[in-house]
Amino acid sequence: MHSPYDLFLIIFGASGDLTRRKLMPALIKIYGKSSSAGSFIIIGCARTPYTDQSYRAYLKEELMHSGALTGEETEVLDDFLSIVHYQPMDPADENTYPLLNNRLKLLSGLSGNHGNYLFYLATPPLLYELVPACLCRAGLLEQPGLKRIIVEKPFGYDLASAQSLNKIYAACFREEDIYRIDHFLGKETVQNIMVTRFGSAVYEPIWNRNYIDHVEITAVENMGIGTRGGYYDGAGALRDMVQNHLMQLLAITAMEPPARFDKNGFRNEVIKVYQSLRPLTDEYIRDNVVRGQYMACDGRIGYRDEKGVRPDSRTETYIAMCLYVDNWRWQGVPFYIRTGKQMPTKVTEIVIHFKPAPMQMFQRKGGRYKGEALIIRIQPDEGILQRMVMKEPGAGFYMGTMEMDFTYDRHDRDTGDAYVRLLEDSLAGDPTLFTRSDAVEESWAYFDKLLAYWESYPDTPLYGYPAGTWGPKEADVLINRSHARWTNPCKNLTHADLYCRL
Amino acid sequence: MHSPYDLFLIIFGASGDLTRRKLMPALIKIYGKSSSAGSFIIIGCARTPYTDQSYRAYLKEELMHSGALTGEETEVLDDFLSIVHYQPMDPADENTYPLLNNRLKLLSGLSGNHGNYLFYLATPPLLYELVPACLCRAGLLEQPGLKRIIVEKPFGYDLASAQSLNKIYAACFREEDIYRIDHFLGKETVQNIMVTRFGSAVYEPIWNRNYIDHVEITAVENMGIGTRGGYYDGAGALRDMVQNHLMQLLAITAMEPPARFDKNGFRNEVIKVYQSLRPLTDEYIRDNVVRGQYMACDGRIGYRDEKGVRPDSRTETYIAMCLYVDNWRWQGVPFYIRTGKQMPTKVTEIVIHFKPAPMQMFQRKGGRYKGEALIIRIQPDEGILQRMVMKEPGAGFYMGTMEMDFTYDRHDRDTGDAYVRLLEDSLAGDPTLFTRSDAVEESWAYFDKLLAYWESYPDTPLYGYPAGTWGPKEADVLINRSHARWTNPCKNLTHADLYCRL
Repeated sequence: MHSPYDLFLIIFGASGDLTRRKLMPALIKIYGKSSSAGSFIIIGCARTPYTDQSYRAYLKEELMHSGALTGEETEVLDDFLSIVHYQPMDPADENTYPLLNNRLKLLSGLSGNHGNYLFYLATPPLLYELVPACLCRAGLLEQPGLKRIIVEKPFGYDLASAQSLNKIYAACFREEDIYRIDHFLGKETVQNIMVTRFGSAVYEPIWNRNYIDHVEITAVENMGIGTRGGYYDGAGALRDMVQNHLMQLLAITAMEPPARFDKNGFRNEVIKVYQSLRPLTDEYIRDNVVRGQYMACDGRIGYRDEKGVRPDSRTETYIAMCLYVDNWRWQGVPFYIRTGKQMPTKVTEIVIHFKPAPMQMFQRKGGRYKGEALIIRIQPDEGILQRMVMKEPGAGFYMGTMEMDFTYDRHDRDTGDAYVRLLEDSLAGDPTLFTRSDAVEESWAYFDKLLAYWESYPDTPLYGYPAGTWGPKEADVLINRSHARWTNPCKNLTHADLYCRL
Repeated sequence: MHSPYDLFLIIFGASGDLTRRKLMPALIKIYGKSSSAGSFIIIGCARTPYTDQSYRAYLKEELMHSGALTGEETEVLDDFLSIVHYQPMDPADENTYPLLNNRLKLLSGLSGNHGNYLFYLATPPLLYELVPACLCRAGLLEQPGLKRIIVEKPFGYDLASAQSLNKIYAACFREEDIYRIDHFLGKETVQNIMVTRFGSAVYEPIWNRNYIDHVEITAVENMGIGTRGGYYDGAGALRDMVQNHLMQLLAITAMEPPARFDKNGFRNEVIKVYQSLRPLTDEYIRDNVVRGQYMACDGRIGYRDEKGVRPDSRTETYIAMCLYVDNWRWQGVPFYIRTGKQMPTKVTEIVIHFKPAPMQMFQRKGGRYKGEALIIRIQPDEGILQRMVMKEPGAGFYMGTMEMDFTYDRHDRDTGDAYVRLLEDSLAGDPTLFTRSDAVEESWAYFDKLLAYWESYPDTPLYGYPAGTWGPKEADVLINRSHARWTNPCKNLTHADLYCRL
């Protein structure tokens, strides 16, 4: 058995944002927790001409000022940096890969690691195709030892591109060595959904169409697209958030219990959810999809004024959909999902709305009756809240609702960091929480219909919504079909005069 | 329609503890809340030779120093006292009742109330038989108008005495005008159990033998019997707490949903629970009942040293039992109930223990897995706590438990006072939350078997337990049958050398 730490982590894109903001802070945490680092070494690769020393100095400076480190982590920072190396190269240029190969061989000789490599693609997406092919051709994958690769989203742009990517990766790596990362699955609360669903005798009996009225899945942000205009305008909310993150949350909420909780058991059940989705026919799309784009409001600029965005862009920055999972458990239960930029707050949560009791023995009184629901808050303030029927205190027997809640914070339980969890799993060789190739393709196969529809019908409505509001009114109409409203965790903001059709 | 306040409340025992500590503070609250007092008048009756003025002065003094009044109540105190009258009489002496009759007629003339009387027996139990008979014979019940009576516990001493009392009351009052008070039912959290059970779609589906492993009902006190030795030594824990309070909690926990939530609907379901109890045969009693008596420990005196207690008393101050409700919902689910004096804390709570999930997909880790349970805390800190399976934060998928809770306090919801609720209901003529005659008899019929057994087998073990501990070890053995332990809301105290068999 290899120790999880007897390998090299090679990061492409080592001078980029992701490495600095997410990977390195996570790697220090992992380093600080592990009693032995084994032969673990990190090799950063990018075009910037750092040396080991100057790269370490750069990281030290960045990390010390990031506010991301605890006191303990600050103490081990120098030790940690001593296992960090840097190899200047151009990941887009096949001819520079021998530099990396030589460096790895040299370090292998020094450290006693014999060819166990974990590659991390923290690069722009356009390199996703190129890097594995270059690794292959440069002979980096030929030597004995583990060869794994971690790829960030987006994995493909549509079904065809995802299939083509999968083909490239499959030619270079075994499926179980390909770690398509979706950081939502690294989140404690998301993993908790599975343990609570399948470990608890309280919720699972009512986790079905007999007791659940509808489900909401929301992942919204209170910011615009920032500096990502160039990428985002070609992608849009569907590709950026729905096809990957929201689909993962949907799968975890809706899936059947696997026979065993392991990489195949779990991911087979994810696939089954995707396969059970009611297909997106043209008619279905017209009735069940609402897209929007944010417009300037109250000092926030509109999407079309963002850097890198075409001034007549019809890219969606908001999407709300109603999905159905057509199986025994979920037949007839609508799943309302939505994502958006420039909303009033940043929040990711799943809300399970329970049907009312079959017989209303008690009258409702006052405004306190809100329907029973389980709210799973993924960010911020990770936790879980159960809204239940209770008696309105005082005379008579009137029905209101009360809220029982659990937050990790209040109970001093650390939820950790998604990248720590996922890096640990990839070091240990457990791909359970990473997206399998067939899941990527199933999800794209489902959404390809929608992409095609938008292409075929370019006049499909795109609703303008004022930046800082909860998106197009048409999304409210969508969920009103269930006699329900979106659960908006902060106040509803409206600027009635600013809504429009773009 | 009469206003609920167009009546006279006649309190027998007006100079006693209950009147001073519970009834009057509750009545001020009711007075303070009501927009109009109608012709409402309170007439206190007792042997003490107060006048209206001196009784009001006595009450004012007591109430002002009790700390029971809010600022607002203090403000209305004088107004309130102006509707309080006093009639000296001996409730045990039939010849003094004409005094009361004359007084009521006089006040009726003045106030415009025409014979609507609500009698409250806040007297020692030995007057429970006498007063209604005297009221009858003195002609107080003959006049037109509502005639209701509220009786405190204990209602009877065994089945025969309860039947005989019921006969006396039935001769004088209609069943729906007899308010056998059990202040547990006046508690907000107890009433909430019904609304949550029958108004919620979350718990009712799992509220049965398929999902519930066992139920605990605990009502214990951290004090001895105080000044009640004379009464208590002839009664014991079974009569004092189990036959009434614990049986009510059991009924509410176990009952089927009534067709309608009203006085007959609700109370019919209570009866059905009692009728479904597995009978107490001699063999069953030997296996399922543990009784105990507290002994001196750490400065607390033993029961046999209490004032009014026989020095060789074999009266139980603690009882733990396992009951079964033999019906479709509960077959095979043990209900462990217990009550005791001189326990480590004062607490009344119901704990519903759920079965583990049928398939254990995740391993347990650390000491944090405790089994899923719903804890309904009736006093102190009224509230509800759901212990659920959750993922232990961090690497892997290990099962722990977390706690979601709701407390009235934390959510600024006033739970009110049991006597306020019950007095309001009795003023309004709603006997739903009061014990019906058949329920009293069913409960006594059930426990008569146990009383008879103890009489037939005087050497039935009576276990001594040190004052300030959680009672006899044998009660732990009892619940261990369910591979469970009593849920003790504060630390387990043991004084191993002090346990014995008396």
